[in-house]
Amino acid sequence: MNIIDHLRARAAELSDLHHVMALMQWDQEVMLPVRAAAERAQQFATMSGIAHRKEVDPALGELIRTAEADGDALSVVDQALVRRMRRDYDQSTKLPEEFVVALSALTSQALPVWVAARKNNDFASFAPLLAKLVAMSRRQADYLGYEKEPYDALLDLYEEGLTAGRVRECFDALRDPLRTMIAKAGGGRDEPPWEGEMFAVEEQIRFADRMLAMIGFDFDRGRQDRSAHPFSTGLGGCDQRVTNRYSPRSIEFIFSALHEGGHALYEQNVGADLARTPLGAGVSLGIHESQSRLWENIIGRSASFWRHCLPLLREAFPAQFGEMELGRLMRMINAVRPGLIRVEADELSYNLHVLIRFELELALINGELATTDLPAAWNERYRDYLGVAVPSDSDGVLQDIHWAHGSFGYFPTYTIGNLASAQIWHAYCAVDPEHEATIGQGDFGRIRGWLTEQIYRHGSVYPPEELLLRVTGERLNPDYFLRYLKNKFMV
Amino acid sequence: MNIIDHLRARAAELSDLHHVMALMQWDQEVMLPVRAAAERAQQFATMSGIAHRKEVDPALGELIRTAEADGDALSVVDQALVRRMRRDYDQSTKLPEEFVVALSALTSQALPVWVAARKNNDFASFAPLLAKLVAMSRRQADYLGYEKEPYDALLDLYEEGLTAGRVRECFDALRDPLRTMIAKAGGGRDEPPWEGEMFAVEEQIRFADRMLAMIGFDFDRGRQDRSAHPFSTGLGGCDQRVTNRYSPRSIEFIFSALHEGGHALYEQNVGADLARTPLGAGVSLGIHESQSRLWENIIGRSASFWRHCLPLLREAFPAQFGEMELGRLMRMINAVRPGLIRVEADELSYNLHVLIRFELELALINGELATTDLPAAWNERYRDYLGVAVPSDSDGVLQDIHWAHGSFGYFPTYTIGNLASAQIWHAYCAVDPEHEATIGQGDFGRIRGWLTEQIYRHGSVYPPEELLLRVTGERLNPDYFLRYLKNKFMV
Repeated sequence: MNIIDHLRARAAELSDLHHVMALMQWDQEVMLPVRAAAERAQQFATMSGIAHRKEVDPALGELIRTAEADGDALSVVDQALVRRMRRDYDQSTKLPEEFVVALSALTSQALPVWVAARKNNDFASFAPLLAKLVAMSRRQADYLGYEKEPYDALLDLYEEGLTAGRVRECFDALRDPLRTMIAKAGGGRDEPPWEGEMFAVEEQIRFADRMLAMIGFDFDRGRQDRSAHPFSTGLGGCDQRVTNRYSPRSIEFIFSALHEGGHALYEQNVGADLARTPLGAGVSLGIHESQSRLWENIIGRSASFWRHCLPLLREAFPAQFGEMELGRLMRMINAVRPGLIRVEADELSYNLHVLIRFELELALINGELATTDLPAAWNERYRDYLGVAVPSDSDGVLQDIHWAHGSFGYFPTYTIGNLASAQIWHAYCAVDPEHEATIGQGDFGRIRGWLTEQIYRHGSVYPPEELLLRVTGERLNPDYFLRYLKNKFMV
Repeated sequence: MNIIDHLRARAAELSDLHHVMALMQWDQEVMLPVRAAAERAQQFATMSGIAHRKEVDPALGELIRTAEADGDALSVVDQALVRRMRRDYDQSTKLPEEFVVALSALTSQALPVWVAARKNNDFASFAPLLAKLVAMSRRQADYLGYEKEPYDALLDLYEEGLTAGRVRECFDALRDPLRTMIAKAGGGRDEPPWEGEMFAVEEQIRFADRMLAMIGFDFDRGRQDRSAHPFSTGLGGCDQRVTNRYSPRSIEFIFSALHEGGHALYEQNVGADLARTPLGAGVSLGIHESQSRLWENIIGRSASFWRHCLPLLREAFPAQFGEMELGRLMRMINAVRPGLIRVEADELSYNLHVLIRFELELALINGELATTDLPAAWNERYRDYLGVAVPSDSDGVLQDIHWAHGSFGYFPTYTIGNLASAQIWHAYCAVDPEHEATIGQGDFGRIRGWLTEQIYRHGSVYPPEELLLRVTGERLNPDYFLRYLKNKFMV
C-alpha cells in the first residue's frame, strides 16, 4: 500500500465508527426506550473513547506528515484528504485528553440543569454552570489557537476559516436593514383560517414523504421518521435519515421536511468516490444551512413553489385548503411576526435572533459580559432589535440548547447559511433565467442537478470559502440576501 | 483497581461494543434503507474487527490467568465472571484469525447463493458451498477441541456442556413416542373459520403490544417493531427489542409475540448487578428457548390462558371471534398437521423436524453423508418420520438459513428448549398447584416472579446444566415434555 492507501484505511475505519455513532444518536432520538438513556450514554462514551484514541494515534500523525511531504504530486482529492485529515488530527490532538473528559462531564452535568432551569424559569440555577462552560470554551480556544480573537478558534470548529471579524462585518450590514424591513412589513401578516386540531398526523406524514420525494430525496437511501425535534443525519453515504414533528394545529411540518430535506439532498449527492473519507459529507454548518434554507425558504416559501404544490395541499387537506387561494396562502406562510422564539421566527426576524446570540456569546467569551448579567442583556436587545418584551427567561435566554451543550460559535452559522443561500440562488438564476417556471413546473431535478454539480458532489473537497468563490465568483456577500428579502417582503 | 475491577472494565467495554453491534443488526432488520446494506456490512466488519482484537488481547488472557489464581477467594458471581471470560477468551483465541476471516467470507458468499437456490429450487448450485461450510465447521471443531466427537465442539458454542451423545439419548426417547402421538392426533385438526384478508395490521399491532404488556414486558425498557422474521435482541439491560410480523390472514402474530416476549422477559429480568458483564444475559440458546416456548406454548396455547384472553380477542376482532367458543379456538390453535416447514409446525411435529436436522448435520460433520446425498436423505426422513412427501428442495432441505450461515449444532437447542420448558413448568406447578387458576385469572406476575427468582435474575452465572439442576432438581429429562404432550394431545 502507498501512503495514501494507508491514510484511506485509517479514514475508512474512523468514518465507519462515526457513522455507527450517528446511528446510536439517531436511534436515541427516534427509538430509544425511556429508561435506556443512561446505558446508551455509557455505550456512546465507550465508542467515543475508542474513536478518540484512533484519532490521536501518533502513527496517524506520522502518516499525515509523510503524505504532506508528497504535496503537489497528489491529486486534488488526495490533497484535500490530507489537508482535512491534518485539520481533524490537529483539532483532536490540541485538546489534552483530561480537558476533553472534563468538558464532556461538564456538558453532561449542565444539560439536565438547563432543562430544569428552562422548565422552572430559573436562570440562577443554571448560571454557575454556564459560567464554567464559558471558561472552558475560552480554554478550548487557547488550546486550539487563533490569530486575532479567542472566538475565532470556536467559530472555526463549525465553519472553517470564519472569524469574528468577518461575522461582525456581515452582521453589521444586516442589522439596520433588517430592523427597517421588519418595521415596514408589519402589515403583511395573515392568520391561518383554522382553529384547533385540524391535521391528521397520518396525512401529514404521507404529505411530508411526498414533499421529500418531490424534491428528490431518495428513499432507497434514506428514511423519514418522527422525533421531538426535526433533524437530519448521515449513517453512511447510502443512509440519510431525516426526522420531522407533526402538530395537529399547523403545517409547519412541510417546511421542516423541506429544511431537513435540503440537508439530506446535499449528503445524498456527495460523490460516491468520497465515501468512507472525511471528505464524504457536507463541508461546513454554514454551507449545509445554505442548502436547508434554500429548499425551505427561497424555493419552499415562494409563489412559484405553491403554484405547483397548492393542488397537492388541497387534495391532502381539503377542509383546510380546499378554498384557499394562492395569495392568501403566501401571506400566511410568509407572515412577519417578530417574536420571542428563534425556531419559530420568520425570514426577516430570524437573523436578528442570531445576531443577538452572536453579540452576547462573543462578549461572554471575551470576558466583557458576566453570565449573571446575561438575561438583562438578552432582554434589552430583544426590546431594541425586535421590539418584543421578554416575559420570562424560559422564553428568553434559556430557550436554546446550544450554550448548555458548550457550543459557542455555532449560532452565526445559521445566518451565514441564509446569506450563502441567497448568493448561491443568485448564481443559479443566472444560468436559469426561467427559474420561476422551473419551480412552477416542479422541475426540481434541474435545480438539484445544478446544485449537485456545483456543490453537493464535492463533499468537503473545497473549504467553505473556496467553494462559495467557485460557485458564485465572490466571497460571502450579505447584499444578495438583503436584495432577496427586499424583493420578497418590500413589494 | 484490583484484578476483578480490571476484568470488569474489559468486560464492560466488550459488552458495550456487542450491544452497539446488536443495535446495528436490529436496525438492519427493522429500519435500514434498501440500498444501505453493503455499507452497513462494512461498518459491521469494522466493529467486529475492533471487538475481536480486544477479545484476543493477550493482556486480557493474562488478567484472566491472574484472576483464576485467586480462585476460591472470589464471590460466586466473580468466580462465574472469571469462568465465563475464560470460556469466551478460549473460544476467541483458539480460532486463528485467518480462519475466522475465511469462514466469515465463506458465509457472506454462501448466503445469497442459498437465497437464490431456495428461490429457484436449485440445491445443486448451493451444494458445493455447503460442502465447504461443512468442511470449515469440521476444522472449527478441531480448533476448538472436543473429548468424544467433533460435533460436541460445535454444540458447545450454543449450549455449554451439551454433547452429541446426550442429544442422541434425549432424541432417541422422543422419536417413537412423537410419531405415535402424531398418528393418533390426526383427528384433532380444525380449520380457521375465516378466509381471505381479515385482520387489520394496526389492530394486530395493538393486540400484540397488549399481549406483551399483559405477560409483563416492560415497554419503558424495550419496544416491539415489525420485521420480516420475528426476533428478540438485547441492546443493553434496559433496552430489549422484539419484532413481529403481521399476516392479514392469521393470528400467528399472537404466538410470535408470546414467543419473543418470553425471550425478552428473561433478558429484562436479569439482575442489574450483572449489567455490562458477559453474565448479564440469558445463559444459553436452550434455556432461552425454554422460556420462549413456555410462554408461547405451555401457557399461550393452554385453555386457561384463553379463558382469560378470549374476551380480549373477541373485543379486538369481533368479526372473527365474536361467536367463537373456547373449545373451537383451542382445537384451532392446537391443530396437529404434520407438514413440510419447521417454523409452521405444531407442538408435536416440531421436534421431529429438529430430529431430522440433527441426524443429518451430525452425519455431515462426521463425514458419513455427502452434501450431494443430502436432499434424498432429507426427503426420506420426512416421509418416514412425518409421513409427508417433499415436493421440492425449496420446501425441503433449503428451507432454513442455519447451514448457509455455517451454524451446525444450533438446531438441537430448539428441542432442548422444549424439553427444558416442560421440566421447568413441572417444577413451577409443584409450588403452584392452582397454576391453571393462576393463568386463568391472568396473574402472570406470579409466574414471572417465580421464573425471575429461579432463572432470569441469574443471567449466565450458572452454566445451563447446573441451572436446570438447581431449578428442577434433576438434569435434562425428556419425560416431562412427553408427559406434557400426552396430557395435552392424547385426551
